Amino acid sequence: LTSRLPNVGTTIFTVMSALAAECGAVNLGQGFPDFGCDPALVEHVHAAMQEGLNQYPPMAGVPALRQAVAAKIAALHGRRYDADREITITAGATQAILTAVLCCVHPGDEVVVLEPCYDSYAPNIELAGGTVVRVPLTPGTFRPDFERIAAALGPRTRAIIVNTPHNPAAVVWTRAEMQRLAEILAPTDVLLIADEVYEHMVFDGGEHVSAAAIPELAARAFVVSSFGKTFHVTGWKVGSVAAPAALTAEFRKVHQFNVFTVNTPMQHGLARYLADPAPYLDLAAFYQRKRDLFRAGLAASRLRLLPCEGSYFQSVDYSAVSDLPEAEFCQWLTREIGVAAIPMSAFYEGGFEQHIARLCFAKRDETLQQALDRLARL
Amino acid sequence: LTSRLPNVGTTIFTVMSALAAECGAVNLGQGFPDFGCDPALVEHVHAAMQEGLNQYPPMAGVPALRQAVAAKIAALHGRRYDADREITITAGATQAILTAVLCCVHPGDEVVVLEPCYDSYAPNIELAGGTVVRVPLTPGTFRPDFERIAAALGPRTRAIIVNTPHNPAAVVWTRAEMQRLAEILAPTDVLLIADEVYEHMVFDGGEHVSAAAIPELAARAFVVSSFGKTFHVTGWKVGSVAAPAALTAEFRKVHQFNVFTVNTPMQHGLARYLADPAPYLDLAAFYQRKRDLFRAGLAASRLRLLPCEGSYFQSVDYSAVSDLPEAEFCQWLTREIGVAAIPMSAFYEGGFEQHIARLCFAKRDETLQQALDRLARL
Ligand SMILES: CSCCC(=O)C(=O)O
Ligand SMILES: CSCCC(=O)C(=O)O
Repeated sequence: LTSRLPNVGTTIFTVMSALAAECGAVNLGQGFPDFGCDPALVEHVHAAMQEGLNQYPPMAGVPALRQAVAAKIAALHGRRYDADREITITAGATQAILTAVLCCVHPGDEVVVLEPCYDSYAPNIELAGGTVVRVPLTPGTFRPDFERIAAALGPRTRAIIVNTPHNPAAVVWTRAEMQRLAEILAPTDVLLIADEVYEHMVFDGGEHVSAAAIPELAARAFVVSSFGKTFHVTGWKVGSVAAPAALTAEFRKVHQFNVFTVNTPMQHGLARYLADPAPYLDLAAFYQRKRDLFRAGLAASRLRLLPCEGSYFQSVDYSAVSDLPEAEFCQWLTREIGVAAIPMSAFYEGGFEQHIARLCFAKRDETLQQALDRLARL
Repeated sequence: LTSRLPNVGTTIFTVMSALAAECGAVNLGQGFPDFGCDPALVEHVHAAMQEGLNQYPPMAGVPALRQAVAAKIAALHGRRYDADREITITAGATQAILTAVLCCVHPGDEVVVLEPCYDSYAPNIELAGGTVVRVPLTPGTFRPDFERIAAALGPRTRAIIVNTPHNPAAVVWTRAEMQRLAEILAPTDVLLIADEVYEHMVFDGGEHVSAAAIPELAARAFVVSSFGKTFHVTGWKVGSVAAPAALTAEFRKVHQFNVFTVNTPMQHGLARYLADPAPYLDLAAFYQRKRDLFRAGLAASRLRLLPCEGSYFQSVDYSAVSDLPEAEFCQWLTREIGVAAIPMSAFYEGGFEQHIARLCFAKRDETLQQALDRLARL
């Protein structure tokens, strides 16, 4: 068997979670909360199951959940998507992104990604037969470098994948940056895959500027969201894609022959939960408090804090502590200090080295404190 | 946007379920039960959610559920799979098959499918950049024609997809047929994707001979199962793949960048449910009774019954009733008679015509009786 993905191993998140479990380390590696969701959400899912909502839902998703996504985007970003023809419920954001790539990238097409980036993007493009074109974010700040982005676009460019708020760099694109992206894409027919799974985690009064909010972008964008990240149920694997009808039609052609559709009781449970007003609104404050608690604790250590404008990741430069390359440092940190982290190099092809480790603060305060106590030993 | 799947529309199952709902027809089209699952299964899922099992499970699936799959295969088919390295939990069988295709089919490779076949196979192959090679099952009997299969295998053949018990033709491959397949594949390095989602629905004392039961096949096979079909929860979207470690390693590379992993509480609920002994064993008798009830009722009509050895589909030849092509007949049947069916032509490229309609009998007895009453008008 000749591998379709010869350079791919097991994702770093799986590797580090397994190591953390093995070592009894506090797991600040893989991004998921160690606290529960709202019990009301669980009861809604239970009720749906008891009512017998256990068979195939409509292929594109339960209508009430699609309408909830459309209503959220209309309220927050001012764009009206047609829930019937422009919103699709997915088995999480990763499936959404692969499906978007598969439906639009033909063999030989180029897709631009901005490094560092989530580790599924490049394999997704390769599986579609496309060529990955890697453009670095500005070294040091991780902000978009529009000259380099513009220079990377050519006649074979089919799409660009943009992630804001950004994993792992915790940068949130400004309105001006989103508008600059729109200007650069305007003369092209390049599609945009906008990975916005951390959309509700933006701090210090900053704003998440969705691709849905910029008409020139929305017209060419697959806007990807995650119920798992927003409602503390990463294991439920429910996400959504908003895209203009013509793009959605192609998306659904692939979606129906990938997962066909998404877990029925989870969809109904989420739809009923969202019928109550505005459960989104507290998320930024909730995570900002955790970020601040975590940063305050880390300030006492020899780790240098990188900025964290959004997402639930705090990255640190550990140069003052160790000379080890990132992957080895994170292994050492897990085994010897008892805190699992993700090497920033995992988000670069070939593992570019900066002595940065990513820590997830979507954890109970006690967990964060326990990690801080251990990190204080550094 | 140039379509990656220019010949694909919305799957026939979605189209006919929507039409059935619109017309108030009895929906014997899309294959799903209209009765509930065991309430104990629902309570297991609820308990898992309440215990906080709502975050990412291991990428390959919850260990106890993988072990349950391995135990089932060992008990029923005598092959021991290593639950850690050879079993993966998937978001349903459709996702399993796409993932298997994507992980092994390179652009330009050929994949053999036996027509009629499930409508996702060909688009799955096309998305991988492969070429679909269609070999007809024997006209009339729908049994495999091994001369034609052997003749279709060439130096570019990467895989063959085999489905037993068969949807839509309800044929169950015999042990001799599975062994003949093994002989034909023996001198090649062709992989086997064995779609066995109706494995527990085999009637009249017949046996399901899994690819897992034939060593020469198991060594090259992805064996695909569906918890949804077996436990009456098609909307939960949980399936599994058993494959030798080398194949599983490639499968998981793609799986982790497609859905990453599968709904946590459903996996735990199923694993706990399966810890009780042998809930599989009654399924054949359960569905055989429904098949017999349905066939007895249809015998009074002018529809000619095709054999039904397995699956939950009963196909009928309606030549004595109507000259309409299958797609039109099924529309007419839905609108005018009030019973939705699936045209057999939907399982052929370009819609080969035989005047056959597929009816699903995974329905409450009252539903089947209501459909029979309506079909008696024909
Ligand atoms: C899908 S597992 C990884 C979760 C995540 O998004 C991350 O840790 O970056
Ligand atoms: C995945 S929807 C279709 C269900 C099914 O397998 C069928 O009706 O053939």
